[in-house]
Amino acid sequence: MAKSKASKAAKSAKGGKASKYVYFFGDGKADGDGKMRALLGGKGANLAEMTRIGLPVPPGFTITTEVCTYYYENKRVYPKVLKDQVNVAIAKLEALLGKKFGDTHNPLLVSVRSGARDSMPGMMDTILNLGLNDETVLVVAKKSGNHRWAWDCYRRFVQMYGDVVMGVQKQGKDDHEPFEEVMDRLKEEVGVKQDVDLTADNLKELVRRFKDLILKRTGKEFPQCPIEQMWGSVGAVFGSWNNDRAIVYRRKYGIPHEWGTAVNVQAMVFGNLGGTSATGVAFTRDPASGEKVFYGEYLINAQGEDVVAGIRTPNPIAKLAQEMPAAHAELESVRQRLETHFKDMQDFEFTIEDNKLYMLQTRNGKRTGLAAVRIAVEMVEERLIDWKSAVKRIPADSLAHVLAPIFNRSDRAEAEKAGRLLCKGLPAGPGAASGKIVFNAEDAVHEAHKGNRVLLVRTETTPEDLRGMIAAEGILTARGGVSSHAALVARQMGKVCVCGAADIVIDYTARVMQVKGRTLKEGDYISIDGTAGEVFEGEVKTAPSEVVQVLVSKSLDPKQSRTYQQFAKLMTWCNKLRRLGIRTNADQPDQAANAIAFGAQGIGLCRTEHMFFSGDRIYPMREMILAETVEARKAALAKLLPFQREDFAGIFREMKGLPVTIRTLDPPLHEFLPHDAETQRSTAHKLGVAPEKVAARVAQLHEANPMLGFRGCRLGIVYPEITEMQTRAIIEAAIQVRKEGIKVKPEIMIVLIGFPKELQLQLEIVHRVAKQVMEEKKTKVSYMVGTMIEIPRGALAADLIAKDAQFFSFGTNDLTQTTLGMSRDDSGSFLPAYAENEIVKSNPFASIDQTGVGQLMEIAIAKAHKTRPDIKLGICGEHGGDPESVKFCHRIGLTYVSCSPFRVPIANLAAAQAALEDEAKK
Amino acid sequence: MAKSKASKAAKSAKGGKASKYVYFFGDGKADGDGKMRALLGGKGANLAEMTRIGLPVPPGFTITTEVCTYYYENKRVYPKVLKDQVNVAIAKLEALLGKKFGDTHNPLLVSVRSGARDSMPGMMDTILNLGLNDETVLVVAKKSGNHRWAWDCYRRFVQMYGDVVMGVQKQGKDDHEPFEEVMDRLKEEVGVKQDVDLTADNLKELVRRFKDLILKRTGKEFPQCPIEQMWGSVGAVFGSWNNDRAIVYRRKYGIPHEWGTAVNVQAMVFGNLGGTSATGVAFTRDPASGEKVFYGEYLINAQGEDVVAGIRTPNPIAKLAQEMPAAHAELESVRQRLETHFKDMQDFEFTIEDNKLYMLQTRNGKRTGLAAVRIAVEMVEERLIDWKSAVKRIPADSLAHVLAPIFNRSDRAEAEKAGRLLCKGLPAGPGAASGKIVFNAEDAVHEAHKGNRVLLVRTETTPEDLRGMIAAEGILTARGGVSSHAALVARQMGKVCVCGAADIVIDYTARVMQVKGRTLKEGDYISIDGTAGEVFEGEVKTAPSEVVQVLVSKSLDPKQSRTYQQFAKLMTWCNKLRRLGIRTNADQPDQAANAIAFGAQGIGLCRTEHMFFSGDRIYPMREMILAETVEARKAALAKLLPFQREDFAGIFREMKGLPVTIRTLDPPLHEFLPHDAETQRSTAHKLGVAPEKVAARVAQLHEANPMLGFRGCRLGIVYPEITEMQTRAIIEAAIQVRKEGIKVKPEIMIVLIGFPKELQLQLEIVHRVAKQVMEEKKTKVSYMVGTMIEIPRGALAADLIAKDAQFFSFGTNDLTQTTLGMSRDDSGSFLPAYAENEIVKSNPFASIDQTGVGQLMEIAIAKAHKTRPDIKLGICGEHGGDPESVKFCHRIGLTYVSCSPFRVPIANLAAAQAALEDEAKK
Repeated sequence: MAKSKASKAAKSAKGGKASKYVYFFGDGKADGDGKMRALLGGKGANLAEMTRIGLPVPPGFTITTEVCTYYYENKRVYPKVLKDQVNVAIAKLEALLGKKFGDTHNPLLVSVRSGARDSMPGMMDTILNLGLNDETVLVVAKKSGNHRWAWDCYRRFVQMYGDVVMGVQKQGKDDHEPFEEVMDRLKEEVGVKQDVDLTADNLKELVRRFKDLILKRTGKEFPQCPIEQMWGSVGAVFGSWNNDRAIVYRRKYGIPHEWGTAVNVQAMVFGNLGGTSATGVAFTRDPASGEKVFYGEYLINAQGEDVVAGIRTPNPIAKLAQEMPAAHAELESVRQRLETHFKDMQDFEFTIEDNKLYMLQTRNGKRTGLAAVRIAVEMVEERLIDWKSAVKRIPADSLAHVLAPIFNRSDRAEAEKAGRLLCKGLPAGPGAASGKIVFNAEDAVHEAHKGNRVLLVRTETTPEDLRGMIAAEGILTARGGVSSHAALVARQMGKVCVCGAADIVIDYTARVMQVKGRTLKEGDYISIDGTAGEVFEGEVKTAPSEVVQVLVSKSLDPKQSRTYQQFAKLMTWCNKLRRLGIRTNADQPDQAANAIAFGAQGIGLCRTEHMFFSGDRIYPMREMILAETVEARKAALAKLLPFQREDFAGIFREMKGLPVTIRTLDPPLHEFLPHDAETQRSTAHKLGVAPEKVAARVAQLHEANPMLGFRGCRLGIVYPEITEMQTRAIIEAAIQVRKEGIKVKPEIMIVLIGFPKELQLQLEIVHRVAKQVMEEKKTKVSYMVGTMIEIPRGALAADLIAKDAQFFSFGTNDLTQTTLGMSRDDSGSFLPAYAENEIVKSNPFASIDQTGVGQLMEIAIAKAHKTRPDIKLGICGEHGGDPESVKFCHRIGLTYVSCSPFRVPIANLAAAQAALEDEAKK
Repeated sequence: MAKSKASKAAKSAKGGKASKYVYFFGDGKADGDGKMRALLGGKGANLAEMTRIGLPVPPGFTITTEVCTYYYENKRVYPKVLKDQVNVAIAKLEALLGKKFGDTHNPLLVSVRSGARDSMPGMMDTILNLGLNDETVLVVAKKSGNHRWAWDCYRRFVQMYGDVVMGVQKQGKDDHEPFEEVMDRLKEEVGVKQDVDLTADNLKELVRRFKDLILKRTGKEFPQCPIEQMWGSVGAVFGSWNNDRAIVYRRKYGIPHEWGTAVNVQAMVFGNLGGTSATGVAFTRDPASGEKVFYGEYLINAQGEDVVAGIRTPNPIAKLAQEMPAAHAELESVRQRLETHFKDMQDFEFTIEDNKLYMLQTRNGKRTGLAAVRIAVEMVEERLIDWKSAVKRIPADSLAHVLAPIFNRSDRAEAEKAGRLLCKGLPAGPGAASGKIVFNAEDAVHEAHKGNRVLLVRTETTPEDLRGMIAAEGILTARGGVSSHAALVARQMGKVCVCGAADIVIDYTARVMQVKGRTLKEGDYISIDGTAGEVFEGEVKTAPSEVVQVLVSKSLDPKQSRTYQQFAKLMTWCNKLRRLGIRTNADQPDQAANAIAFGAQGIGLCRTEHMFFSGDRIYPMREMILAETVEARKAALAKLLPFQREDFAGIFREMKGLPVTIRTLDPPLHEFLPHDAETQRSTAHKLGVAPEKVAARVAQLHEANPMLGFRGCRLGIVYPEITEMQTRAIIEAAIQVRKEGIKVKPEIMIVLIGFPKELQLQLEIVHRVAKQVMEEKKTKVSYMVGTMIEIPRGALAADLIAKDAQFFSFGTNDLTQTTLGMSRDDSGSFLPAYAENEIVKSNPFASIDQTGVGQLMEIAIAKAHKTRPDIKLGICGEHGGDPESVKFCHRIGLTYVSCSPFRVPIANLAAAQAALEDEAKK
């Protein structure tokens, strides 16, 4: 669309109709305004807008993005009318300022800067001090009385121009920057070390040498004519739209090549004209905390780049009130004007030239998640924006930051300074945690029991580590991605987790780990930040988030927490807006309770297998697996029945009539057996069988690709008695809890269905056992039966499967693995290369691969609706908590998403935003 | 369609229009004929047809399948007009035979039999001797002069009628058959052991007790009126259409429930009236060898069931020429008449009653693969059928039997008799082989080198076993399905293979295996039959098939082999008909040569990794994998280059300009590393690195699910130098062979593509290196680049991928694993239960799962055609050699199928049949 529009403009230009390509701004008036980002770029549009609302913007003009598009579509030739329009604009600029290009009394100096629709920081070229030449430099020197400054400006301009416009750059990888080399040689000759120590005369000599260098390298003289300088610079900026860096950046951030950049030509102002001049960067509110305070920094007698470069330490903005009270007061009023006008927190640049304030740029400021929520909610309270805008504006992932415990900031900085940052891994469970190293689940439980805080450090985790993960403050793994077992469980439990920290090598036997040459042993303190993926040696102080203190640990009075109140307000707004249901993945009553506190409307995935790992239940489970006859298997299952029934009853009680989707046994049986000889021996002893038998069964159950093996409904088909026991536990628990006066709504989910007959066979068992239990208990209880769609065939046969399934829940974890032929656990070896080569836009295990997996979901939905128009559709993969995926689920018409308890608020916000996107389309 | 037709008939019946429901046959005339299978059932249609062509068929009539359909659609009520039509038919029958139902001089006795459109042997009920009652039995006894026989007939009738019509059956699982119980008690009372020892009086008493039993159990008397008996029997036959057995059978064989069964009421004839009576079963040609000889067996003085029951040993049909020369001559002429008329080998039943021949049934006879080919080809030579009918008629899989070496039949029978049949496994590589047991590849090579025939016995095989598999006569595995590595390689090489023989437990250390309590050690002889899946102790003699002797070993003059000549003729016919190309999967020049001999038109899949296992090449391969820098990796690859180039050159030479699709490296790298400590040590020694390094790399490359891991194009993306080397080898080989004056047509296939960018990145490498090589060699060679579609995402993104791919080849092995979420290697634990529960119709790794995998293929094709209408489409999974899959590939419009060399003829025949099916549709 952008392209065709631009092409049209280009055509009309060719046809001779006078398109407007140049937009002037200055003296309180502007041809453009803030809405014209597409045409003027972000910077140009906001310069026009600031001018219009009376802010002190140095005058200038913007050459539109259409010129850029025309330029590339017409072999780098400008529209014919451009020159005239630019000349008119220059004349206007000269008249307004009483200065002239190349004038020997009052020479006009300008900057030439790029400005695309979306900010592309540092990607394209900028030219400052344009208009200086051998004559005007003298005028400027004289007028300012600062010769050194004037020559330094000229020196910088020649260098920039020579580099950017005339292409005097280093040739090969090992070449030196040619201008730097010349300067270094001069510094050596005159015996100084710093640039600032060069005198006016030194700089004059440097200009001469720079010009020589340009002539020698290009065969061309550095142009003295400011008009020529300007066209050269404009051409260079347009040219930089297609440099490698910019192309890579656009590809990465999905910016269309056809958009093009605008070029801003603006009168120069100088913050480095002495003690009455300054330059600075400021935010209208604190971008870290969101607090409504004026926040920023400045330097007296400096240029913009000095603030950023960090050679001098800037002052906090408050100090300006003492150093330049008038300018500070003016800035304060500008700050308020910006917010009233732009309705968002602004990040702006200013320069004070000889006590006069100039605004050089403004844009919406980047902020932390915490600040995003606070600013949006407070702006609603201030009636600056309406509540829907607030919802729209907060990135859904921000809420992870609101919920996560964090390192004490100064403590962390100190630790890094002290060299205690050990290594980095993947940020897998947001938040921060600190504790003693333990290398196995047993130790974790043991230490936690003694009241010690521990971090469980493993090469990778398995379901056997679950107790340890529960006991630990956080989990650190050397292998596995953001969707590895460790990460998945950590997020569900709200545990801090750093995974895939590849620098860590663990020696379980010696109970030590090696990190980049350092050795840490069991019991040593470490601290991890699962938001940043950082691992520290020793302790870094942390605290749980206020929201969690209010909702989960209930240790904080909601009235005491502004953060909580704002969070709660946001959640109320989201609940009003969204049409997608939000459920949670929870296996235990306490998880269910947390999720409800966060606003979940039901359980979308209750994994029954996790229940088999807690306490001594693993033994009857193992007995069941080792059984050699149906009778022996049934006897072992009978021992598990009361545990399962109690677990389900606990969850039903907690959910108080909200729907609970219970998945039948899924993992391959070998996951429940011990794999080391020692535990095999103790298990054999406990079960009264020969250790060889345990080992033999482990060997027999070994699989080449367990992900594609004997699991899911395949277990229930080969061992129907497992499904029988689970159905009995569910129905008995439901009847028991209903007798207590609590409503129950069980939804039984048969897993890994690819063939309609699989579901039919399992359904027959469920209905038969349910009927039997109800007859025994002389009561009825209603339940649903559905299936998880998690292998491509399930999606492709959805019409047939939906005949028997009352609901579908998309298991997008496994659906991603099978559709992409990519093992979640093994993808670490190539996914980094895939990200680097831009083969995948984002990690497909974190955000749904819409082209592949998403397409299969859409196929499944269309097919399912053919045979069961009212089918209930959900998602219970990890993607249910990813904002982009939640929005996708909304668009394809799911009934609900289900995610880990701590991501319920994120899903809620994303779902509300999806609903708002629909409103916008109408 | 069948249903709507039947419904229409039913409606017209309701409307009172006199539909014809009863078809009479007898005395050389018949209302129906052989084409009316849908209406009269197979048996009824052929009885009519035989009557029409003057064969001696006992007269009778057929009640049509429409009555069955009407019966079930109208709450088990018959059309009104049926009774009248049946009465007319009975009157006609009585008139024709001069007998009457219940007549005291000449009573009519009939049989009532079911007869569905497709034969459903043993599924539905049959009543014989109907018309006998307390009076007629005396008449029959008197007339025949054989009282015992008459009472036995009556006894059998009462028993059958009581069971089938009146429902006197055992009640529970542990109940006895009630009639058998009564008979056993009587036998005890009179002190005899065999039924045949019961006297006429005993049988008379038995009839009395049977009638008592019926009355006691049902409250009803056994009916004496033959008309009542007949309606009861007709009702029972229609009722049996919906008994459990029949429903299961129809589901299994895909017979629609709406078809219904017909009922045949036919005059009884008796082969057990003494020395001038007989009964028999015969084939018009030998069903085992296909030889045109009269083949069958008979018993004097017996009923049909006696021949089948096997209590008396029947005589070969030739003996009848001596015992009953006239009957034999008449049979011989019937045999010829049947073939001339039915144009196919017939399997028929006859009875001789007092020297008079009666035909009771005829149908197309079942035959072995060998016989199928011989009969069809010879019938064309005899001008009985045309060549297209011959092609249509031969089951494509028959050719496996024609190509497979076989056990010497008598030797096998002797071995089984001697208790040497050890166990059974899956028939994975057709044919038979015999040899000494070896338990590893090295020993296999070593023993074969010494000239010993060996069978490689492994728990399962891996690519490391390849050399051993080549050296061995056959492969026997304890684990793995028909698509396991062992099976796949065996079929490709035409090796005999039995896999998944679960009774076998191997102890590699002790070099023994246990089979059901027997211990066999290294060096012991065993014999396996890969067509039957049998394993024998000791040697059972074998011979290669004649076709293989002619084409492959070239040890037999084609003129000497009738089998070969018939095979060749069939192949010529197929080549004329088919539109699908046939290629082969071959990795070595000799395999390619075999495939060409069998008629392959190119190589559809050349796996480059197999090349790395032969000889010492594994060491540079391992060096490459252990390399820590790009340079080291490149150095190792440089060592592999000449080997690869030579392999490719060899294949190009053999293929003489036929297309060769070469797949880039696919398997995960750990497959190339040794996993046992000993070989790790020797490898480390050979490569001059520390053994720990080898072990560490093995551990690092270990994957939870290698099938979904770091393999295929993922290798070439992380290590571009691998793709570079392989491209160079292919292009250099192509140029080299072309210089020798041989045409070359390389097609480079990038593997495991899911994302368009993956292909783009690999394409860039292929084109860059190809260009470079051509510049170096100062010549050009054309090549194509395409991709394998083997993961669902590849199919779902086919439109995007086809932009860059010149061809697609469906890798249906992996596509099946990912689409079904089912590991080929691990499915053995649940696929048997899946077959038993009819979840899958056939093994999805043997025949394409059309609903799932097939649907994805169709999606991919439709999408690919959008962006590249002329894309070349093939299949290179094992399914390429499965007849049903080949036909599916034809229907969805593939360009070619590719299969293992020994399945090329099968694919050829299936493709020809698919083309004929199209003709039939026109």
